[in-house]
Amino acid sequence: LRPAAATNIILLLMDDMGWGDLGAFGEPSKETPNLDQMAAEGMLFLDFYTASPLCSPSRAALLTGRLPVRNGFYTTNGHARNAYTPQDVVGGIPDSELLLPELLKKAGYTNKIIGKWHLGHRAQFHPLKHGFDEWFGSPNCHFGPYDNRERPNIPVYRDWEMVGRYYEDFKIDLKTGEANLTQLYLQEALDFISKQQASQQPFFLYWAIDATHAPVYASKQFLGTSQRGLYGDAVREIDDSVGKILKHLQQLGISENTFVFFTSDNGAALISAPKQGGSNGPFLCGKQTTFEGGMREPAIAWWPGHIPAGGVSHQLGNVMDLFSTSLSLAGLQPPSDRQIDGIDLLPVILQGKLIDRPIFYYRGNELMAVRAGLYKAHYWTWSNSWEEHSKGIDFCPGQSVAGVTTHTQEEHTHLPLLFHLGRDPGEKYPLSFASEEYQQAVERISGLVQQHKDTLVPGQPQLNVCDQAVMNWSPPGCEKLGKCLKAPESDPKKCSWPH
Amino acid sequence: LRPAAATNIILLLMDDMGWGDLGAFGEPSKETPNLDQMAAEGMLFLDFYTASPLCSPSRAALLTGRLPVRNGFYTTNGHARNAYTPQDVVGGIPDSELLLPELLKKAGYTNKIIGKWHLGHRAQFHPLKHGFDEWFGSPNCHFGPYDNRERPNIPVYRDWEMVGRYYEDFKIDLKTGEANLTQLYLQEALDFISKQQASQQPFFLYWAIDATHAPVYASKQFLGTSQRGLYGDAVREIDDSVGKILKHLQQLGISENTFVFFTSDNGAALISAPKQGGSNGPFLCGKQTTFEGGMREPAIAWWPGHIPAGGVSHQLGNVMDLFSTSLSLAGLQPPSDRQIDGIDLLPVILQGKLIDRPIFYYRGNELMAVRAGLYKAHYWTWSNSWEEHSKGIDFCPGQSVAGVTTHTQEEHTHLPLLFHLGRDPGEKYPLSFASEEYQQAVERISGLVQQHKDTLVPGQPQLNVCDQAVMNWSPPGCEKLGKCLKAPESDPKKCSWPH
Repeated sequence: LRPAAATNIILLLMDDMGWGDLGAFGEPSKETPNLDQMAAEGMLFLDFYTASPLCSPSRAALLTGRLPVRNGFYTTNGHARNAYTPQDVVGGIPDSELLLPELLKKAGYTNKIIGKWHLGHRAQFHPLKHGFDEWFGSPNCHFGPYDNRERPNIPVYRDWEMVGRYYEDFKIDLKTGEANLTQLYLQEALDFISKQQASQQPFFLYWAIDATHAPVYASKQFLGTSQRGLYGDAVREIDDSVGKILKHLQQLGISENTFVFFTSDNGAALISAPKQGGSNGPFLCGKQTTFEGGMREPAIAWWPGHIPAGGVSHQLGNVMDLFSTSLSLAGLQPPSDRQIDGIDLLPVILQGKLIDRPIFYYRGNELMAVRAGLYKAHYWTWSNSWEEHSKGIDFCPGQSVAGVTTHTQEEHTHLPLLFHLGRDPGEKYPLSFASEEYQQAVERISGLVQQHKDTLVPGQPQLNVCDQAVMNWSPPGCEKLGKCLKAPESDPKKCSWPH
Repeated sequence: LRPAAATNIILLLMDDMGWGDLGAFGEPSKETPNLDQMAAEGMLFLDFYTASPLCSPSRAALLTGRLPVRNGFYTTNGHARNAYTPQDVVGGIPDSELLLPELLKKAGYTNKIIGKWHLGHRAQFHPLKHGFDEWFGSPNCHFGPYDNRERPNIPVYRDWEMVGRYYEDFKIDLKTGEANLTQLYLQEALDFISKQQASQQPFFLYWAIDATHAPVYASKQFLGTSQRGLYGDAVREIDDSVGKILKHLQQLGISENTFVFFTSDNGAALISAPKQGGSNGPFLCGKQTTFEGGMREPAIAWWPGHIPAGGVSHQLGNVMDLFSTSLSLAGLQPPSDRQIDGIDLLPVILQGKLIDRPIFYYRGNELMAVRAGLYKAHYWTWSNSWEEHSKGIDFCPGQSVAGVTTHTQEEHTHLPLLFHLGRDPGEKYPLSFASEEYQQAVERISGLVQQHKDTLVPGQPQLNVCDQAVMNWSPPGCEKLGKCLKAPESDPKKCSWPH
């Protein structure tokens, strides 16, 4: 069934959750009954990707439908460096970018973001300036606590104004891992859905929660309930919350008019495992890398009455497709004045089609790898530097593939490393350069790369400059709360992006 | 529901199939719809183990309900060496061992083995001398082809006599991977089930097929149909066959009176991956090792009308439990004159109980590790020797955990390496020796080890002596076929077990 115009859209975006963290994807504790049920009732995507192995660029890509190298969410401070939006980053989402909620507004949608924004925390980057109507959450990661002198605690916003700060008004107990934030975010979602259902207005809910990002947290009632420790407790609470959201839609009688998609912003942060990081299943390495563990994501589409139950798709999907698919659900066309990298997945989801398209694996300013069909070609390999690795920073703990998980940046542009991800999902066995299979696959992929590079117009990099003065010293609303802090003198510098 | 006496029993035992090879266990190609459906209709065991990371001892354990160190399927030729039954092994299953089919006979069962026996190939070890009534299959692995001078090709038996040899009468094309053996084994199973149903006799079918053991093979109709290459083709054919067996039971109206269990003999042989070996999902290493990848197995119980659909169990199970569970299904008691290591899983399967019991990880004559609850303590660590590793023999390709996947045999008996398999299923993060958690868990496990060792009466090792003269030169029936070969002079030697 094709959607009625103005189908509601809910994107459930996890933070650092890995492909292997759900029972439906083979997590051995199998503690996600609600997500597994969601998959059983909907469609499981096994080959779904993010556009960056790091949070901010991934989220910018999702909301713009464009690669970070186009929308500006990257850095040129070094080669192939991941960059994001800590408090001292000066940049953020450019006004010139058209975000999904801005476009959905034209079709009468009310748009809400719950949770982490991460597209810049300065005034001009505020989500309500970029199409969202409501916000409950925060602009940056929930790192801390800070001393409010060297560095302010991260603010939590309701709509235009801050309503408190993490560790002050919104507690996170780093010792026990207790925080009730997922419950707050759940309640916000349920209330918003109820309100929209009552007002008969279509809605877009972007539920970007962050309990599985270090420091990982869970509510008291979930602490100690998982076989997997604190990380598993957080997953269980999220699973429970997703179940409640889906049930709420059904109880309100709007599940058949609401498209729900579950995925994550990047691979599990193995560097924080096992207590503060998840699992990428059988895949190589994790967050920060362009190996499968860094960029292949758990993904489930759910839409009773439209998506046949128990579907499984091998469509190569990307978080950027959620932009195009959402527009399609709203009866809108994607912008025609710019390159859009996302594709409309509705033919895949509703008719089981398979669309031939490549996946580009970027790290900062560099196209590291490309997947086409079952083949993946690495043009550059790098995990992290020897210097960092020697300090115990390891993006591939317990894994080491000679010539692949390299600690120096290795260029392979003339003879890319090629893997067949069907036979070798773990990227352990590069194909022989001399084989016919290699030559045919690389010829095809190199053509795609050439076409991509020839037509690429990189955006102005937004994540190059950092300045202590732009941190969250005095967010709007701080006066009412007596929480304004004095910013230091402005002293812009090149941001340091070590990997 | 409790079973009626004389419930039919089908054990589907795979060869070198890994935990991560089924869609239901997170294999990313998700090409096992029939097995996934079997799991959805039955009970998935996520913490199910073999008794040995190698084929012969695993199978001896399954059929005797006893650890290989008790039933003799081990070697003392070296420390902690895996041994099995190649053609020149002199030993086999001792007459003093009571095998499952011998016991089931007393309850009126007709017992058939289809596929690989592997408990010795000399006359006294013939499966029909150990309780089976029928056999179609072969005594050893389908290695070859051999020249019939240095080494004879492996015979294929029907019941008491050979009916041909692999590569001669039963073709395996090593170049294309084509062989129709799984189809033969499937047809044997369907015919046997039909015959038993017609005769109203209860039956035990031990379907021990070997398509996923190197050299991996599939029938022509399945070649090239998998995303995973030849190995995946073999898995797809097995999946299809299992579906046909279950459907056959349903069509004959005996599914509610037939208990079916699917599992594998040891972890995937990563040394043969990707073309000839499977996947152990998120677990460490593979076949030949006592890490989880070597010994945790995919496992599904199916019994419509008795096992609630969609069940998932974290019971620590073992292939030896299939001995005790089968006896229970037949209304029989396990032998009381010897130590039985298997437990009856019916309370787990039918009532959802969890039975507290340890898992012992043996390699040859040595207890390498013990799991109790979610903790696993390694008393010895070893993958393989530096010498073998330097030749490219790698049981842990792409994986390396310092101090864990060691290439020298490391003793930890006084301070075992401890892992929490819930938080760390990949055995990457040993717990701190100083932690209270370590001390409590190790105290408990050490008690179990002490008790186990104190009461252990090792069996006479059967896999110490090899002799070219005992190979399959002239199996029974060879005269009729003109396939008798001349054996060389007897020259018994200590078998060489390098790992």
